Amino acid sequence: MLIDLNSDMGESFGAWKMGEDQEMLTIVTSANIACGFHAGDPDVMFNTLSAARANGVGAGAHPSFLDIQGFGRRQILGETPAQIERQVIYQIGALQALAASQGYPLQHVKTHGAMGNMAAEDPLLAMAVARAIHSVDPQLIMVVMPGMETEKAAEKMGLRMVREIYADRAYTESGTLVSRKLPGAVIHDAQQAAARVMQMLESQAIITLDGKKLPTRIDSICVHGDTPGAVEMARQLRTLLESNGLTLAPMAKVIA
Amino acid sequence: MLIDLNSDMGESFGAWKMGEDQEMLTIVTSANIACGFHAGDPDVMFNTLSAARANGVGAGAHPSFLDIQGFGRRQILGETPAQIERQVIYQIGALQALAASQGYPLQHVKTHGAMGNMAAEDPLLAMAVARAIHSVDPQLIMVVMPGMETEKAAEKMGLRMVREIYADRAYTESGTLVSRKLPGAVIHDAQQAAARVMQMLESQAIITLDGKKLPTRIDSICVHGDTPGAVEMARQLRTLLESNGLTLAPMAKVIA
Amino acid sequence: MLIDLNSDMGESFGAWKMGEDQEMLTIVTSANIACGFHAGDPDVMFNTLSAARANGVGAGAHPSFLDIQGFGRRQILGETPAQIERQVIYQIGALQALAASQGYPLQHVKTHGAMGNMAAEDPLLAMAVARAIHSVDPQLIMVVMPGMETEKAAEKMGLRMVREIYADRAYTESGTLVSRKLPGAVIHDAQQAAARVMQMLESQAIITLDGKKLPTRIDSICVHGDTPGAVEMARQLRTLLESNGLTLAPMAKVIA
Amino acid sequence: MLIDLNSDMGESFGAWKMGEDQEMLTIVTSANIACGFHAGDPDVMFNTLSAARANGVGAGAHPSFLDIQGFGRRQILGETPAQIERQVIYQIGALQALAASQGYPLQHVKTHGAMGNMAAEDPLLAMAVARAIHSVDPQLIMVVMPGMETEKAAEKMGLRMVREIYADRAYTESGTLVSRKLPGAVIHDAQQAAARVMQMLESQAIITLDGKKLPTRIDSICVHGDTPGAVEMARQLRTLLESNGLTLAPMAKVIA
Repeated sequence: MLIDLNSDMGESFGAWKMGEDQEMLTIVTSANIACGFHAGDPDVMFNTLSAARANGVGAGAHPSFLDIQGFGRRQILGETPAQIERQVIYQIGALQALAASQGYPLQHVKTHGAMGNMAAEDPLLAMAVARAIHSVDPQLIMVVMPGMETEKAAEKMGLRMVREIYADRAYTESGTLVSRKLPGAVIHDAQQAAARVMQMLESQAIITLDGKKLPTRIDSICVHGDTPGAVEMARQLRTLLESNGLTLAPMAKVIA
Repeated sequence: MLIDLNSDMGESFGAWKMGEDQEMLTIVTSANIACGFHAGDPDVMFNTLSAARANGVGAGAHPSFLDIQGFGRRQILGETPAQIERQVIYQIGALQALAASQGYPLQHVKTHGAMGNMAAEDPLLAMAVARAIHSVDPQLIMVVMPGMETEKAAEKMGLRMVREIYADRAYTESGTLVSRKLPGAVIHDAQQAAARVMQMLESQAIITLDGKKLPTRIDSICVHGDTPGAVEMARQLRTLLESNGLTLAPMAKVIA
Repeated sequence: MLIDLNSDMGESFGAWKMGEDQEMLTIVTSANIACGFHAGDPDVMFNTLSAARANGVGAGAHPSFLDIQGFGRRQILGETPAQIERQVIYQIGALQALAASQGYPLQHVKTHGAMGNMAAEDPLLAMAVARAIHSVDPQLIMVVMPGMETEKAAEKMGLRMVREIYADRAYTESGTLVSRKLPGAVIHDAQQAAARVMQMLESQAIITLDGKKLPTRIDSICVHGDTPGAVEMARQLRTLLESNGLTLAPMAKVIA
Repeated sequence: MLIDLNSDMGESFGAWKMGEDQEMLTIVTSANIACGFHAGDPDVMFNTLSAARANGVGAGAHPSFLDIQGFGRRQILGETPAQIERQVIYQIGALQALAASQGYPLQHVKTHGAMGNMAAEDPLLAMAVARAIHSVDPQLIMVVMPGMETEKAAEKMGLRMVREIYADRAYTESGTLVSRKLPGAVIHDAQQAAARVMQMLESQAIITLDGKKLPTRIDSICVHGDTPGAVEMARQLRTLLESNGLTLAPMAKVIA
């Protein structure tokens, strides 16, 4: 059985460095690369693509609201879905061209931060993202959270889709992430995170905080790259997955 | 005989409007569209592409240094050619994706402002621009000034090339533009500008301030869209060209 | 009786022009000057301050969320009041220094766009703005909408306060502005706007769409400078006010 | 004898961290704080001011060209001295207001990166900076390199002035810094750097690569905070200075 590990990358900017991309690229199989709207610049994007390619890691666009200072984490209200669609197209296109310049085509798109959270809840925004992806290249995979609006939108647009779970985040009864403000929202122990991921994969279901199972296909596991201990957690997760007989592969292979 | 009229467009930004794009699109045959680094944003870019398409005007990218506040007119020193190459790729890609989303492929690339001036003089920068264009799509046309480094770079990269002259600018003996600070640098009278353009086309040469002729193929005439009287000058030029038996067409047709 | 006319100014940016500031400065008595976060740049700010001074117009800061592309009209969520307080301090300080460089001290502060609307409704944000103003200079006037949270915050901080009404906007029963999406929200006829303003001044009350009167002191009237016909509406309003025996003066004099 | 140690600080930005400010603030006596044009944002600026105050470190503005992506290291050409003057005023004012909000007045101004280098060589730009400082507060200290245009400009404007040397950079015969591209330009060994600084202080002269002495008053020593080993080098330098009987103090006390 194949499974993908994805992580956000290329979130350095100008003189500032973020994350342990070089390390992470030896562990994960798909990289969500910032496109200059919340992080990343043409140099960072180019170099992250090169490094992904060198490691056989699938490269994807990680578009965001235009919000460098807030790292794309702030909700920006008052834009129409059509406006957001164009922003997503712009970003995918920019990364796609940098990828084309080194002969390494993009694999997927995963929205970042506030845009991602809002798209998961808002059907109009989810459709705007799906349309954006489709219009740039209908072969691009859309990464979605099972049960959310983005899953429905990808389906409607006929996009290839990858359903991901979070390695270190607890889920509510309805399958959304438990707010970081609540106790138990984040799993800090690598072994515990890895064990829970294995449980979900085996039951092909999201397991909520209460132990409820929400059946879903699972194609990819999202791990963070910018928190302390992130590399270690990713490495332990990968080791456990492999020792359980799973094979790690870029998401395009997982759903092939 | 075919000739192209090109003009910079899509240089509005957010709440700010610039130029008379709607008018100009009924006159010119190719549009150089700002890509968000000196002007333009995803909405402006999308709408300018739509309007270009509706008018049968060839759409091109107009990449610049990252300099919104300075409108791309300020020289920015200290970047390597490789860095500038990636910035150009980023911008072309962003516009290309917005063009693809409406099924209207890009025709050409013309660098803007300080980047354009510097590339004309600097062989390394000219090659960076040519490589950027080639790596995104080797079919894209590179717009160059005859005799300048950009012409050589386009040739070296094997790019399709369009040689342009300026309708309202005087030329020095060596074929560069007379500095705007000198008397006679800018031709403000539409009739005079149009007459001089006809002379150049007939002699297939740049005619310098001293009356010297520098032989060159001429494929396109650049007219400005953001100065008072710009629309009127463009219209008179078009009328004169047509009354002299020339047919206006997008640059891709001119060099086909 | 004294009354102030205030208008937003200095909303040009780099190469882009907005509004008829030169005209408006001969009509209004207080100018709300953009501080670079939604519009304005150091040159525009400096020149607007000079022009305000030359016309005897009181100069104020017009701080905003950091949102050049959205012109400060988009709500940005996820910042703490303390963060917004620092953004407001930053902007007032920047304008204050440019004002000091020409010996023309600032008179007031009025928040712009989405920040202004949100502060009117949110007591924590209103207090953040009031604290920011107080900490830069406790003598600065805070411009508020009668009955809103900003009025309460200015009172709590002991700030000098100017209560303003809008010349061209209809009011709901509770004294808020009728949404622009509803019919009758905006008064386009200059004579009608001027007559209604006179009514409000005479009854010292906001007059709602239903004719209800909400008693309040009125110190200033806000007129727009960036819509077609704006200058004409402002001029007619000023003429009517003067012909009714009112004297126009900067807000600091009105509340002296 | 008193001497100041100064270092650049507050160069984090949004989600990105730079430098070991907390450590450095226990070592240096003056902090050059970024003002948002090349690094820093209102939160970073506020927090750096607080930390400087808590450590008794003199706070200064560190204005730059507007160039977040290039960290202010790129030369930007094509602006008039008057434009640059306004940019410097804007930045000092913004930081000054944040300083005033915590009752901790600014001590000095030191230009950053490309702006600093250009001002050292260009008398018009040096005067623009000096005028900017003077117009915001004539009591602010201007930090200069001995023998450069900035020293002359500070003198002409009658500003208080602090002459600094670099702890880890070699000097040419004419007193400028040896280009980083040349061998020996940067001193990486802390002991060697400290010893050389002591020599310069004892002879009250800049000592060039050839051993020549260029007599000058020396008030402050600049140490870097963002390179590997920076904290350690600063700490050793401070220890050596103190063991040689020097007393460390903010630059305002050094020149008092």
